[in-house]
Amino acid sequence: MRSPVSRESAKAGLPPGTLVHVGTPRSEKVRITVFGYDEKDFNERETRAEDCADALKKRAVTWINVDGIHDVAIVEKVGTLFGLHPLTLEDIASTHQRPKMEDFDNYFYFVLRMPYFQRRGGRIHAEQISIVLMKNAVVSFQEREGDVFDPIRERIRRNKGRIRKCGADYLAYALMDAIVDNGFAILETLGERTESLENNVLKEPDPAVVREIHALKRELILLRKAIWPLREVLANLSRDDSPLISKSTALYLRDVYDHTIQVVETVETFRDTVSGLLDVYLSVVSNRMNEVMRVLTVIATLFIPLTFLAGIWGMNFEFMPELEWKFAYPVVLGIMILIAATMLIFFRRKKWL
Amino acid sequence: MRSPVSRESAKAGLPPGTLVHVGTPRSEKVRITVFGYDEKDFNERETRAEDCADALKKRAVTWINVDGIHDVAIVEKVGTLFGLHPLTLEDIASTHQRPKMEDFDNYFYFVLRMPYFQRRGGRIHAEQISIVLMKNAVVSFQEREGDVFDPIRERIRRNKGRIRKCGADYLAYALMDAIVDNGFAILETLGERTESLENNVLKEPDPAVVREIHALKRELILLRKAIWPLREVLANLSRDDSPLISKSTALYLRDVYDHTIQVVETVETFRDTVSGLLDVYLSVVSNRMNEVMRVLTVIATLFIPLTFLAGIWGMNFEFMPELEWKFAYPVVLGIMILIAATMLIFFRRKKWL
Amino acid sequence: MRSPVSRESAKAGLPPGTLVHVGTPRSEKVRITVFGYDEKDFNERETRAEDCADALKKRAVTWINVDGIHDVAIVEKVGTLFGLHPLTLEDIASTHQRPKMEDFDNYFYFVLRMPYFQRRGGRIHAEQISIVLMKNAVVSFQEREGDVFDPIRERIRRNKGRIRKCGADYLAYALMDAIVDNGFAILETLGERTESLENNVLKEPDPAVVREIHALKRELILLRKAIWPLREVLANLSRDDSPLISKSTALYLRDVYDHTIQVVETVETFRDTVSGLLDVYLSVVSNRMNEVMRVLTVIATLFIPLTFLAGIWGMNFEFMPELEWKFAYPVVLGIMILIAATMLIFFRRKKWL
Amino acid sequence: MRSPVSRESAKAGLPPGTLVHVGTPRSEKVRITVFGYDEKDFNERETRAEDCADALKKRAVTWINVDGIHDVAIVEKVGTLFGLHPLTLEDIASTHQRPKMEDFDNYFYFVLRMPYFQRRGGRIHAEQISIVLMKNAVVSFQEREGDVFDPIRERIRRNKGRIRKCGADYLAYALMDAIVDNGFAILETLGERTESLENNVLKEPDPAVVREIHALKRELILLRKAIWPLREVLANLSRDDSPLISKSTALYLRDVYDHTIQVVETVETFRDTVSGLLDVYLSVVSNRMNEVMRVLTVIATLFIPLTFLAGIWGMNFEFMPELEWKFAYPVVLGIMILIAATMLIFFRRKKWL
Amino acid sequence: MRSPVSRESAKAGLPPGTLVHVGTPRSEKVRITVFGYDEKDFNERETRAEDCADALKKRAVTWINVDGIHDVAIVEKVGTLFGLHPLTLEDIASTHQRPKMEDFDNYFYFVLRMPYFQRRGGRIHAEQISIVLMKNAVVSFQEREGDVFDPIRERIRRNKGRIRKCGADYLAYALMDAIVDNGFAILETLGERTESLENNVLKEPDPAVVREIHALKRELILLRKAIWPLREVLANLSRDDSPLISKSTALYLRDVYDHTIQVVETVETFRDTVSGLLDVYLSVVSNRMNEVMRVLTVIATLFIPLTFLAGIWGMNFEFMPELEWKFAYPVVLGIMILIAATMLIFFRRKKWL
Repeated sequence: MRSPVSRESAKAGLPPGTLVHVGTPRSEKVRITVFGYDEKDFNERETRAEDCADALKKRAVTWINVDGIHDVAIVEKVGTLFGLHPLTLEDIASTHQRPKMEDFDNYFYFVLRMPYFQRRGGRIHAEQISIVLMKNAVVSFQEREGDVFDPIRERIRRNKGRIRKCGADYLAYALMDAIVDNGFAILETLGERTESLENNVLKEPDPAVVREIHALKRELILLRKAIWPLREVLANLSRDDSPLISKSTALYLRDVYDHTIQVVETVETFRDTVSGLLDVYLSVVSNRMNEVMRVLTVIATLFIPLTFLAGIWGMNFEFMPELEWKFAYPVVLGIMILIAATMLIFFRRKKWL
Repeated sequence: MRSPVSRESAKAGLPPGTLVHVGTPRSEKVRITVFGYDEKDFNERETRAEDCADALKKRAVTWINVDGIHDVAIVEKVGTLFGLHPLTLEDIASTHQRPKMEDFDNYFYFVLRMPYFQRRGGRIHAEQISIVLMKNAVVSFQEREGDVFDPIRERIRRNKGRIRKCGADYLAYALMDAIVDNGFAILETLGERTESLENNVLKEPDPAVVREIHALKRELILLRKAIWPLREVLANLSRDDSPLISKSTALYLRDVYDHTIQVVETVETFRDTVSGLLDVYLSVVSNRMNEVMRVLTVIATLFIPLTFLAGIWGMNFEFMPELEWKFAYPVVLGIMILIAATMLIFFRRKKWL
Repeated sequence: MRSPVSRESAKAGLPPGTLVHVGTPRSEKVRITVFGYDEKDFNERETRAEDCADALKKRAVTWINVDGIHDVAIVEKVGTLFGLHPLTLEDIASTHQRPKMEDFDNYFYFVLRMPYFQRRGGRIHAEQISIVLMKNAVVSFQEREGDVFDPIRERIRRNKGRIRKCGADYLAYALMDAIVDNGFAILETLGERTESLENNVLKEPDPAVVREIHALKRELILLRKAIWPLREVLANLSRDDSPLISKSTALYLRDVYDHTIQVVETVETFRDTVSGLLDVYLSVVSNRMNEVMRVLTVIATLFIPLTFLAGIWGMNFEFMPELEWKFAYPVVLGIMILIAATMLIFFRRKKWL
Repeated sequence: MRSPVSRESAKAGLPPGTLVHVGTPRSEKVRITVFGYDEKDFNERETRAEDCADALKKRAVTWINVDGIHDVAIVEKVGTLFGLHPLTLEDIASTHQRPKMEDFDNYFYFVLRMPYFQRRGGRIHAEQISIVLMKNAVVSFQEREGDVFDPIRERIRRNKGRIRKCGADYLAYALMDAIVDNGFAILETLGERTESLENNVLKEPDPAVVREIHALKRELILLRKAIWPLREVLANLSRDDSPLISKSTALYLRDVYDHTIQVVETVETFRDTVSGLLDVYLSVVSNRMNEVMRVLTVIATLFIPLTFLAGIWGMNFEFMPELEWKFAYPVVLGIMILIAATMLIFFRRKKWL
Repeated sequence: MRSPVSRESAKAGLPPGTLVHVGTPRSEKVRITVFGYDEKDFNERETRAEDCADALKKRAVTWINVDGIHDVAIVEKVGTLFGLHPLTLEDIASTHQRPKMEDFDNYFYFVLRMPYFQRRGGRIHAEQISIVLMKNAVVSFQEREGDVFDPIRERIRRNKGRIRKCGADYLAYALMDAIVDNGFAILETLGERTESLENNVLKEPDPAVVREIHALKRELILLRKAIWPLREVLANLSRDDSPLISKSTALYLRDVYDHTIQVVETVETFRDTVSGLLDVYLSVVSNRMNEVMRVLTVIATLFIPLTFLAGIWGMNFEFMPELEWKFAYPVVLGIMILIAATMLIFFRRKKWL
């Protein structure tokens, strides 16, 4: 709960543009990989921050990927090499941004959030991914080494699909597409959990269900918050008439836009379902409670009057003539059975049994 | 729950435009039927994918209907013959699209969702129907052989109504109209189920009602999700000034638009009613519970004090002078009856009886 | 519940424009009345469908009113005489339209819904009224003979107000105004029912209240669905720059628009109130339940321990020395009274009494 | 509940423009006061309807205030003298209008609603105030003599503030400002009632709270309905480029607009709080109920088994060897105490005590 | 609750533009500090109201900060020196304004609300901060001496960041940024309280939770009301084409805008969580209640019938043959154990144990 806020507030008072890493502290070495490619060939290597701009212009498209942003010195070096605005650098280093697009004169800056399941606890977290789209290059910044972009690397290496034939805008699109498609994978897992929760609620409701519903709701909100603002980003992008985005790529962006809406709509449907589950759970619990109460009522209502009768003839008064009657006992038992039977019929009429 | 997502995620990482069937796996043979017609005559035949473009230009309007899209090779062949964009082909093959319209230079591509009742379980599913509208032709793709377009075939064969006199745009309209009208049939069944649920809740509420309400809500959401985006599609279409849509057809599209809104509004009314039913159910159940509790209270409150009194004179103390009094027993019985009567009057005053 | 849908679906598959009556089947004879009037004079007669266009142009304004649309042949005849589009005729005959306005080249077509209380059951139904506004004539179609337009007839006959001085647009306005004003009458009755429900809930809540709340909610939704779309129709109409609407009539249309909003806002207030009533009812019921439970608890908690004590000395052990003590009995009674008193004080402290 | 509707419906069927008083019937004499003022001087007098236009043009600004509109003849006379449209007169006389602005060629007509606390019952009512703004004059109509405009009269008389230096538009603004500021006074009282309700709910919740919450909600809705539409009126007015509103007055109108929003936002906050109070009340009540139930359970669970044991040894079987044992009685008592102690420890573990 | 309204209403009736302090009464001396700075140097001193305009034009940018507005004479003096409109002065002195921007010809006037935790009680309050942005100067008004602007003073003194290189617009931006960043600090504390509340609800729910939820909700609403309108202010400001805002500052304003949205979204997430907590709390409580009831039912249902049996054989009838049977007592005990066992098995089957 605290994380999106707690560190941001540590910056309060610093002049804007100050480069401070805001996010989970990490100690891994920052890894910078450079991909250069055109339709004919590609090359791929790991490099130091100082050298990453060298690759530019050797190939039609250059993709620089920075894994790890906790070393702000490296982010700053890369940023300076590519002429990024101080606000962009600050946003890259503050990992709790809302997805957005900013249009600087010579580049587009995208902030995206990629939800993933934490190894421990299995709860959803969202990693911030920054993408800077320039004329012939894409620079991407990830919080941690991830594998969501591996299929794209593979497509570049093997020249699969259109990627090697298109420009940097198509690469940026491919990265965004990978992130949105990753949302479907998350949704699949959440869908399975919703479904199993649904079965639990209807079959054997136990109090843990309430916590799970609460947790699921929060994860759906987190997923929604990560994907929802993308909608606006992509809508603006396709309306935009920038030379950085070619017309053919715009068609593909429309496609990601559709996927974004689909993710958000499915999240909403899941939220509706999960909210509905709480109602179902509460009414299932209340039905069970009623059943319990009905049994108590029937037993108590049946035996309390009979016990009273037994108590009457258990009194020690000297002058209780019926005590001496010969058939008093069986008659009394008969009367008791009669009363019980009458009550049972009454209960059955009332549908309490 | 899983289906709209689970298969989509299998595609994560594939280059966009890769043709993979995403949907319920099927094994039926794909059937392609070709209708050519103009005002004077029509011809109708089944064909192979390779030959389906031959029909073009022989008649004023050509309608190619593909039943089954699980064989992506066939979809691809048809797509290539008509010059469809790779993204269109991908969308045709991915059966979990949201209804939408895409405007490519030489054709309109419509994704529609047709809700239908599954044979087993009777729950609603939604089939994806793709319609490609070109200058003189309509290509439609269905997931499975269906009968919703049969009346249109009949109208072409028998030259009923305006269909033979109009162009491909009118045919596309007729297909959409058939799908929206099908929504009314679904609504009718759901309306009957809502109505019988309503009777159940008010007459003999049992816990199964909660599940049925939950299920009905989900089906209404599914229906809404299938029809609601059509609204926007049709509004855009009528604003559009494309040469593919004639002015007279635009009037008819406005009519489908009105029907779409009517379906969605009725769905919303049903959702309101069904949500209200849960409240009604819960208060009916709680009323019954109260009745049960009232009876328990009356019986227990009546007999517990009397049983205590009986217990008093059931004690074995040696010096309890009243035990030897001659009329002690009837007096005690009288007191007990008096107490009971007082209580009953109190209960009646409190309206617990 | 079914009606708005069930019959509409019967049309699925028919070519659009097919004239089928969709609505409650009726058998009364269709009645056509023709009013011609100008500032100086008026004439009024009943006529056959074939002759109803004869009246045109004899007077400045002609008003043809068709009571009953179940005889589609008549609707068709009238439609043909006035050059109505097939879609208009279809909409006139399908009585489950949503209120709307359609602008055809030479006429405006209005669909309105007039809510009324059914004779049996007293529930609200909504009748569809179609109004066709042409240059010098208004054609109105009602489902059944009604009296809502009688005051307008009277105003024409007696030359009250401006109606005889104005054109056909003013007549159309007057008809709409009559329908919206009728909404106020409906609201008045619903308001009275809400008020009496409110008294019931607070004074003597009984389970029937839940049903009445549910019913009232549905009727308010129905009323809202009948009036709400009018808002948009009238807003569009006043923005419209059509020669059919004179500028002075536009002022009056703005007035109906205000009334429409007022009806809808009052409906919303009633819905808020009725929804709130369910909460009030549930908490009143729960308060009564608590009172019942408190009494049970007090009685049971008071007497169960005392009964146990009486049981102790009712045991038949041979060696129970206190049984022989002379003042054991009064001492025991004293102890019991003491315990009861202590408990009563405790209960009073806890505010359970 | 009925009032906003019941009388309006009485007009159904009358030709529009018919002048009928719709509102609480009153019998006080209608009072007309005329204020004429410019920067240098002012005069003030009471007059008859026939003479009220005489004051015009003698001073820079003339303000005619009509207290009481139940005498429609007077309203009509005043209206005719100033050339008001019949619809305006109708709106002035129908006291259940929604706040609105209407732009007639030569004047602006404002309907405002001023909420006030009724003397009896202390519930909120809303009085309709009509303001007609002309080039050099303002005509205002109130339902009853009120004191909300007194400070403005005082400002004119004593030449306080800018009022004598400005035109009729500033006077109209001052009247509106007085009405909106009056909303703050109402809010203050409602805020106090909310606060005391809050204390009641948390300290000593009793069932009357539910009624008070219900009543408070309705009054907040009434206040909101009176102020909310003003927002739109003022926004339109400031966008308007009419010669009736000077540029410097427009600045002041923006200020009233801000106040309007502030009133509405505070109303919304109060509504949130009051709605939340119902939840708090219900959970406080349910907590008390649980406490009651816990006590019942502990007592019953403790003594019911012990009473059973006492009952066992109270049976009259001849062969119950333990009855004759010398230490049976103390042993049995010991066992009972042991059972009770064990149970108490169990209850404490479960945190039921 | 009352504060935002109670004092505002005290002004009802005063002419607009009257300078009255509306807010918490204070007695500290008003402190005015003047900062003049350009890229090369800065000077800083405390001054009297009369002299504060002297600093203007000596340096590129002048910042006058007024701590305390309860002395309206001082506010008026400062206002007159800088040519502020009477409405601006009134707004500065009325401390319950909604955040807004007003564009006067020669200056922008911003009202901001800075939430802070009160020393006593720790509840959130919001202080009003007014900022007047002129060509070369910024005048800021705070209700009380605060430290939220200290880091900005430090940045000016030490020439950190861009602040000394930029104009007055950048200073105004820095002030707004400090206020929004302060919102993150508030959120952090509220987040911690939400988190600890969450733990409480799931681990040891006690009734105080309901009050805390209610309080937290209200504080979140207050925070939201303080920040939300800023969104619109900043959006308007960046759309505005005023010479007062330089293009490079506009970029920074977009950044504050993003932060504003982030604060509001986090507030919304917290509100969702807190609202959800009430549901969780209620169902946890209801689960505990059910557990209690189940134990009561099991004990009562087990022993009530057995006690009845013991009562039967405790009756004093003379002719009860079984009393004399030798093994009657052990047989009866056996039967009782059998009944109890059967019931326990039944309960276990029903999962009540």
